[in-house]
Amino acid sequence: MLKMLSKMAMCKSHGQDSSYFIGWQEYEKNPYDPLQNPSGIIQMGLAENQLSFDLIESWLTRNQDVIQFRENGGSMFRDLALFQDYHGLQAFKNVLVSFMAEIRRKKVKFDPKNLVLTAGSTSANETLIFCLAEPGEALLIPTPYYPGFDRDLKWRTGAEIVPIQCYSSNNFRITESALEEAYEQAQKRNLTVKGVFITNPSNPLGTTMSRNELNILITFAMTKNIHIVSDEIYAGTVFDSPKFVSIIEALIDRKLEKSKMWNQVHIVSSLSKDLGLPGFRVGMIYSNNETLIAAATKMSSFGLISSQTQYLLSKILGDRRFIKRYVKQNKKQLIHRREMLASGLANSGIECLDSNAGLFCFVDMRDLLNSNTFEAEMELWKKIISNVGLNVSPGSSCHCSEPGWFRVCFANMSKETLDLAMQRINNFVNSDRDIHRQQPLRFVTGAGSRRRRTIANWVVKFSSGDGRRDR
Amino acid sequence: MLKMLSKMAMCKSHGQDSSYFIGWQEYEKNPYDPLQNPSGIIQMGLAENQLSFDLIESWLTRNQDVIQFRENGGSMFRDLALFQDYHGLQAFKNVLVSFMAEIRRKKVKFDPKNLVLTAGSTSANETLIFCLAEPGEALLIPTPYYPGFDRDLKWRTGAEIVPIQCYSSNNFRITESALEEAYEQAQKRNLTVKGVFITNPSNPLGTTMSRNELNILITFAMTKNIHIVSDEIYAGTVFDSPKFVSIIEALIDRKLEKSKMWNQVHIVSSLSKDLGLPGFRVGMIYSNNETLIAAATKMSSFGLISSQTQYLLSKILGDRRFIKRYVKQNKKQLIHRREMLASGLANSGIECLDSNAGLFCFVDMRDLLNSNTFEAEMELWKKIISNVGLNVSPGSSCHCSEPGWFRVCFANMSKETLDLAMQRINNFVNSDRDIHRQQPLRFVTGAGSRRRRTIANWVVKFSSGDGRRDR
Repeated sequence: MLKMLSKMAMCKSHGQDSSYFIGWQEYEKNPYDPLQNPSGIIQMGLAENQLSFDLIESWLTRNQDVIQFRENGGSMFRDLALFQDYHGLQAFKNVLVSFMAEIRRKKVKFDPKNLVLTAGSTSANETLIFCLAEPGEALLIPTPYYPGFDRDLKWRTGAEIVPIQCYSSNNFRITESALEEAYEQAQKRNLTVKGVFITNPSNPLGTTMSRNELNILITFAMTKNIHIVSDEIYAGTVFDSPKFVSIIEALIDRKLEKSKMWNQVHIVSSLSKDLGLPGFRVGMIYSNNETLIAAATKMSSFGLISSQTQYLLSKILGDRRFIKRYVKQNKKQLIHRREMLASGLANSGIECLDSNAGLFCFVDMRDLLNSNTFEAEMELWKKIISNVGLNVSPGSSCHCSEPGWFRVCFANMSKETLDLAMQRINNFVNSDRDIHRQQPLRFVTGAGSRRRRTIANWVVKFSSGDGRRDR
Repeated sequence: MLKMLSKMAMCKSHGQDSSYFIGWQEYEKNPYDPLQNPSGIIQMGLAENQLSFDLIESWLTRNQDVIQFRENGGSMFRDLALFQDYHGLQAFKNVLVSFMAEIRRKKVKFDPKNLVLTAGSTSANETLIFCLAEPGEALLIPTPYYPGFDRDLKWRTGAEIVPIQCYSSNNFRITESALEEAYEQAQKRNLTVKGVFITNPSNPLGTTMSRNELNILITFAMTKNIHIVSDEIYAGTVFDSPKFVSIIEALIDRKLEKSKMWNQVHIVSSLSKDLGLPGFRVGMIYSNNETLIAAATKMSSFGLISSQTQYLLSKILGDRRFIKRYVKQNKKQLIHRREMLASGLANSGIECLDSNAGLFCFVDMRDLLNSNTFEAEMELWKKIISNVGLNVSPGSSCHCSEPGWFRVCFANMSKETLDLAMQRINNFVNSDRDIHRQQPLRFVTGAGSRRRRTIANWVVKFSSGDGRRDR
């Protein structure tokens, strides 16, 4: 019989049933509100940056002409309504590369002709994979990684992900042996490796990659003659030392501008985290590879950015003084929030992975596990959502190789809400830890397949369908 | 040796070298301007609707709050900046389905839960193909068709297009035998046919499909158990009788709501032509097929519409009285322009295909051909661009099965410019026709492959790279 829809449309394996997304659905059913629902779930699974909106809002108030399409006494409306060149508004690309340089401490000069605009970084990432890999070819990705990649990078492209296993023993750093091991795994699976895909600063770790790591990675990619994709959508959230080093800066430091590698490194960037504007869908690819840029530009037809939004943001980013102020204040706010979270958790005896970037911490709750298993992690997560009233993201949803770690977001709520969340954790740890230890939970321990089945069964209880495009 | 980029990225066959796009590049090099460049090329190859902008601009002037994100005394900016649910703004989807019904004479009631928003109809079309066809499976498409489909429907999905050959003898109508013949062609090529893809109203014909044609198509699709995709992005440009009949209306008329076919018909819509807003990238899929809608909604992550734009347009479309007025005035304007073009050409002895929709006419210039070949069509086209100074689109770029037809747009310029274009054509026909007839042009006539080579050689002379996303 003819299959009416494609395998792709019928496929269930696009990550939607990850606990990462299921946590959001639980939150949606019972969202915390200080007045309407004070015992509701606090959303700490959403990497949004709400800390510096006041700056953008006051910029908009001062620049009424811009949102009204007025320029030099005339209206830009017609021009914008008709503008659909897939190269994007030149003025927008010019200020975007300046912004990219600004948040990379001007160590790299970016050329607007190497930039492709996409409707969000989701699209940028997928486009890169379409350009780099045939169906069935593989990308190596360090764990833990953003759960959405299983959908974004594999679903329509047919590419495969092979994890580079990283461990807490060295703060989840990439090592030469971890890279080699992943490469061997791929070979065992008969997969051609086309590149390493990193997220720097890391989501969910909240850390930037060291120069040493970047050098290991570059050497590895050169040896194997493969690409490096560096998803740098959190570059603007680096709030503390060590300073952020972009993969392109690392290439320049090694004087690799004339090498083959110069054309095999590609950056993904976005305004969703750096400016806190995920709704405006601004993503981009930066690459020195002309052929790739030409192909990706044509592919950008499938997800162009509204010209209305390109125009507005070209004006905001074009205000260099404003942007400098924004970046500075945003960092301050992030430091403050990160500190609130870390010290709040420390009061409960919980430690965070040392971090210097991102809108979240990777939190070590191994002490709260009943056993060193992923079932215990799921059990604890369930408790944190249902009993403590916090939605956090379990490390297993990010393919973390060790149970007991959770990503906890701190920039998508008010200070008061964050305070309350810390109180709730504190109450839980103090009152429940002992009880929890005394009454072992009834979950099945055992080997891989059985374990996965247990998680899957539990996960099925939640309805599916949340449509949030968070990273 | 490892191929560094994918075949997809290296592939040259994505339609960019079509004369359709090359004409734009020629125009860009020497664009007409009444003051600055009065002898430049007039762009008649761009299906833009500039006729009713004054209405939208005055709406914006009257509704300053909307573009300033103000609502009920507060600002919507934060909410919009953060909104990234791939289901889209509910308010926007509600008014979109009302608008879809409005321009379909309220014969169909559309449900917002069956709607998927996409960044333009380019993305909507590709998404549908991803959902319907495996790589190597085929869609049947009536000729002539929009040149961009060769890229949009095939490039990344791996699907194939098999043309349904239509002819001027019956005004390029779809017949049962043409459908059967295309189906057989597909079978000869060992391709599984997954559906028929129509554009109704047709681009480039400017005609709507009759009830009879739709019934033939529905019966054919039912017999073969395949899908129908109806690209109805020109539905709002129908300016004359016969009235527009959507494929869904045709299903309802045949009481097929309970049949299998009800879930095998999918509509693509957009605001690019109907409201003249291609820059805002608003496209959508409408389908009664729940599974397809669920998959397409997830895929819409790769091309979401800016929330800023969703918000603005939800307000404009929500003003029902305004929209009724817009639709009415827009029709008047289109009738007037179509008449200007048709009578202007008639003065030169050139006829247009009888049409009732679209932003263009399909113009019969067979009399001006030196021979009944596609080389002669290319030769004439070159003359029209270079000597007459008009960029029109040759039928061959739309896979028309007969040489001598050209798509000529009338809604993307002022009346004065259209008048000038008509004068130029008139001068050309009166002064050049005889010369042209007396001096046979030196092009190679002959069989298929040789002919194609000739066209290709000529085409190569133009530089590539225009990025306009017109339909």
